[in-house]
Amino acid sequence: MPLSPEQLEQIDAQRSQTQQTLRVVSAGMESHLYKAHEVLDHGFVRVVDYMGDDGAIVQAARVSYGAGTKKARNDEGLIRYLMRHWHSTPFEMCEIKLHVKLPVFVARQWIRHRTANVNEYSARYSILDREFYIPAPEHLAAQSTVNNQGRGDVLTGDEAQRVLDILRSDAGRAYDHYEQMLNQEGQEGLARELARMNLPANIYTQWYWKVDLHNLFHFLRLRADAHAQYEIRAYADVMCKIVADWVPAAYSAFEDYRMGGANFSAKGLDCIRRMIAGEEVTQEGSGMSKGEWREFEAALKG
Amino acid sequence: MPLSPEQLEQIDAQRSQTQQTLRVVSAGMESHLYKAHEVLDHGFVRVVDYMGDDGAIVQAARVSYGAGTKKARNDEGLIRYLMRHWHSTPFEMCEIKLHVKLPVFVARQWIRHRTANVNEYSARYSILDREFYIPAPEHLAAQSTVNNQGRGDVLTGDEAQRVLDILRSDAGRAYDHYEQMLNQEGQEGLARELARMNLPANIYTQWYWKVDLHNLFHFLRLRADAHAQYEIRAYADVMCKIVADWVPAAYSAFEDYRMGGANFSAKGLDCIRRMIAGEEVTQEGSGMSKGEWREFEAALKG
Amino acid sequence: MPLSPEQLEQIDAQRSQTQQTLRVVSAGMESHLYKAHEVLDHGFVRVVDYMGDDGAIVQAARVSYGAGTKKARNDEGLIRYLMRHWHSTPFEMCEIKLHVKLPVFVARQWIRHRTANVNEYSARYSILDREFYIPAPEHLAAQSTVNNQGRGDVLTGDEAQRVLDILRSDAGRAYDHYEQMLNQEGQEGLARELARMNLPANIYTQWYWKVDLHNLFHFLRLRADAHAQYEIRAYADVMCKIVADWVPAAYSAFEDYRMGGANFSAKGLDCIRRMIAGEEVTQEGSGMSKGEWREFEAALKG
Amino acid sequence: MPLSPEQLEQIDAQRSQTQQTLRVVSAGMESHLYKAHEVLDHGFVRVVDYMGDDGAIVQAARVSYGAGTKKARNDEGLIRYLMRHWHSTPFEMCEIKLHVKLPVFVARQWIRHRTANVNEYSARYSILDREFYIPAPEHLAAQSTVNNQGRGDVLTGDEAQRVLDILRSDAGRAYDHYEQMLNQEGQEGLARELARMNLPANIYTQWYWKVDLHNLFHFLRLRADAHAQYEIRAYADVMCKIVADWVPAAYSAFEDYRMGGANFSAKGLDCIRRMIAGEEVTQEGSGMSKGEWREFEAALKG
Repeated sequence: MPLSPEQLEQIDAQRSQTQQTLRVVSAGMESHLYKAHEVLDHGFVRVVDYMGDDGAIVQAARVSYGAGTKKARNDEGLIRYLMRHWHSTPFEMCEIKLHVKLPVFVARQWIRHRTANVNEYSARYSILDREFYIPAPEHLAAQSTVNNQGRGDVLTGDEAQRVLDILRSDAGRAYDHYEQMLNQEGQEGLARELARMNLPANIYTQWYWKVDLHNLFHFLRLRADAHAQYEIRAYADVMCKIVADWVPAAYSAFEDYRMGGANFSAKGLDCIRRMIAGEEVTQEGSGMSKGEWREFEAALKG
Repeated sequence: MPLSPEQLEQIDAQRSQTQQTLRVVSAGMESHLYKAHEVLDHGFVRVVDYMGDDGAIVQAARVSYGAGTKKARNDEGLIRYLMRHWHSTPFEMCEIKLHVKLPVFVARQWIRHRTANVNEYSARYSILDREFYIPAPEHLAAQSTVNNQGRGDVLTGDEAQRVLDILRSDAGRAYDHYEQMLNQEGQEGLARELARMNLPANIYTQWYWKVDLHNLFHFLRLRADAHAQYEIRAYADVMCKIVADWVPAAYSAFEDYRMGGANFSAKGLDCIRRMIAGEEVTQEGSGMSKGEWREFEAALKG
Repeated sequence: MPLSPEQLEQIDAQRSQTQQTLRVVSAGMESHLYKAHEVLDHGFVRVVDYMGDDGAIVQAARVSYGAGTKKARNDEGLIRYLMRHWHSTPFEMCEIKLHVKLPVFVARQWIRHRTANVNEYSARYSILDREFYIPAPEHLAAQSTVNNQGRGDVLTGDEAQRVLDILRSDAGRAYDHYEQMLNQEGQEGLARELARMNLPANIYTQWYWKVDLHNLFHFLRLRADAHAQYEIRAYADVMCKIVADWVPAAYSAFEDYRMGGANFSAKGLDCIRRMIAGEEVTQEGSGMSKGEWREFEAALKG
Repeated sequence: MPLSPEQLEQIDAQRSQTQQTLRVVSAGMESHLYKAHEVLDHGFVRVVDYMGDDGAIVQAARVSYGAGTKKARNDEGLIRYLMRHWHSTPFEMCEIKLHVKLPVFVARQWIRHRTANVNEYSARYSILDREFYIPAPEHLAAQSTVNNQGRGDVLTGDEAQRVLDILRSDAGRAYDHYEQMLNQEGQEGLARELARMNLPANIYTQWYWKVDLHNLFHFLRLRADAHAQYEIRAYADVMCKIVADWVPAAYSAFEDYRMGGANFSAKGLDCIRRMIAGEEVTQEGSGMSKGEWREFEAALKG
């Protein structure tokens, strides 16, 4: 259970204080504000603030393209046009701020997206809580035998049990020692900034993460993808649902053009043209390597 | 008069639609929303959206530094501490979106600040309005004789009149020709993206500009400074007032540490120590160049 | 002729000073160093420094993916893999610094790419030269009648002549007045930062522009594209040739996946699948708008 | 000893291949190229590429400020002027690429500097080595009793021994279990991306890190500072020496204005003026809080 009674109370308090504003309001987003969406065994994502809605994207585009735009297209069509033509700046006009609790190894992947603002809980200054990510049995995957970076079958039986036992006992012992180093009977105790080095990468941290919608879409395209590590994808999937409620037209265009779409090379386009013309095209005749051809076929099948 | 009756009506409409929100609200900012603050002869700055307030800065800092922070400091003291120690990330948690109308030569300085989001009116797509910046007589400055980048005395009399006549007539003729090239009797007319090249740098453009508070402070430190060109400073000065109403504690710290403060080199510090000890320090004994010493004395005098 | 004899001499001098280095050297790039590639009537692009080559991309990827990568793929295959899967960070390991001379209206489009470093000639501090872009007759295009943002037929005869006359005489007069305002008989002259406002957008400026290869590819994808304005595309085309000599494998992958490739939406993919299966698909049955269908057909035809 | 015989051989090979280049060469930097500077017990910093030198900063500034600059100042004076007036873009014209081996908890602090390019060794794809940071006895500091974020006295005797025993045995056990989970007798073994979560934050990782000189100075100002955690400061100190050899004039200005300088608030300036005038100023009369006054006095004393 990721949330303490105090935290739940605080969320209730935050959700009970309605105020008046002249700003644009997204009804879908108001329903999410402050609520904690649980992710993994102790993590969560919650929206703590936002700016803009679908209309704000359209408004920014119309500053750029002038009054003529108004007649030519409805809002949804304009948003689809912007997404299709990689116009990024109108999507940058929306902003979201999230409070996220996540394991450190997920945080390390996440932070590689540099165009965002972050304030993370400091283990130099404060003491981390005793909370570790232990995978659910159905996510205890073996190393893939075909892909250096992927997962294969799920471990079962004794093998699964042994892994879970190791993760649990090592995490517990590391935390016991962390506490002992910090707080030694009649002695000063090791500096927090040093003691933390004993803690494993499945310990939970938390941060405030603020990003604009264009960069959020980029994050989601990579992290809600089937090739992303399951643990970060779990966060991305929750965020996709939130964004769909926040900016429904933009999210729908994102799903169509980015998540559900595909990019083909000049070679791939040539093969597609030949296939439409009725030709039987094989890897040998495609000009692609085996790996590339496999991905090409997968994209065509969907 | 920068605003048309239609624009004023639109602003009234925007300010009449109050909605409910669970988000943090800044009362000072709500009073600014959508209103156009006039700048120069045809320009304006208006806030079209914002995220966060002083409390959001504190909240982000406390995620970082943990619960211990709460007891030790009140909010204003914490904000001053963050500003003093160059902690930038908590200030990045606030965001503002402005609609700005400004001469092109000001826009060209402004855009050099890269960490912001911009959607500018497109002269490829749309036709620019006949609006040019013509300096007020009191801003018609001569080239400085001591500073390659600065202004000297104000021009007066015939000389001033001649400059104003040139600026007005050249702008008018350039715009007449722009229109003629765009729209030629019984002919197609030159492409907008080409015709615009005839327009001078004092024509007005407009954009939506979105930035976080940390980067906004950086912009204001450079552009509300006495060494900035007057025309961009006029915008920065208006923005300072808006920010002071939005996040009073952060703005007050910014004024004390950045706008009113000074940075001294190791050499400068050494001189200050000797001066406090009662020594008479001169440029020759300071280790500084003449220019540097002049700036040092100016900073000390204030 | 964009280059003065002094500039040509300086380039010769720069190209005559060979030095020893332990750094990676790109032979293709050494042949470009300092040389001015002429663009438009007075502009140029010249490489003034670079870092890395194809091998540097591979080296960075292998730090990430470890030793296992070495056996599995040759360098070119790895670069293609990285491009195909949108791995941007290895391409960021190469850097280029260009000296560019370009009309101000081109500079205004160019600067919208924010992830680069720029030092532009300052018209606050210095006096601009009397050099203006006047389109060659074959680029004097009419406004497109089907595309708000595009060009149509080329203007000819009297109409073309009239436009050229306007552009030339307005530029000349604006510059004459610029000089007169700066330098008034027996008087101080208007400050440079003010006088420049009289100059039109086809005056030439220059800058040093430094960017990493990933962001350069992004720039080239948008600006060497058929939809980009001709004048910036002229620069992008020259830069493409330089990059092809610098990092041949990366450029070849860029051409195949980005310039020659296409992105299809989920709807587009569905249509392609039906077309390969022999079905006759029309706009009505595609789920796409008319404009989108037109673009879809164009992408398929190539 | 951080480097294996293979690595030392590879460095020798890299340093033996001199090539010709037309680019600017920094003699000081050539002497560093590829060499590994040892940091902590298993870490290192080594320069793998660079672009530019002091002259490149001056060259970029002179593009901006035009020919007039040449007469007015020598190169060193110009660099000092740029640093004093916070002109960042000329310093962005130099770039450095480092190969760094560092503990994960140091990497987590480092990566917060977002304006850099990074390729890190991937523990999803590859297997990490058995190398952990164990502090030298003289760095085994207790938690500070006056500063939540700092270190106090060094631990000694049994207390120190106990901490070292814990860090060593926990790291060893965590790595044994990591290997056992990866590679289980007659079984597939846990996916690498999951097994790594058992590893503590003192395990070493490595990356290529590329940054421009302006952002590097910003990093060094914060991380070579007395308030930075010792372990990241050890890296920053080594990097300071490298930069001093690379761009001596820029580094000297950085030392004088940033590392050795101080920033005073408006209140602080007022106190300094009163002190120079002979007044005895106390905290009570300063308008500063106690903490701020303590820092003010420290800055004045140096």
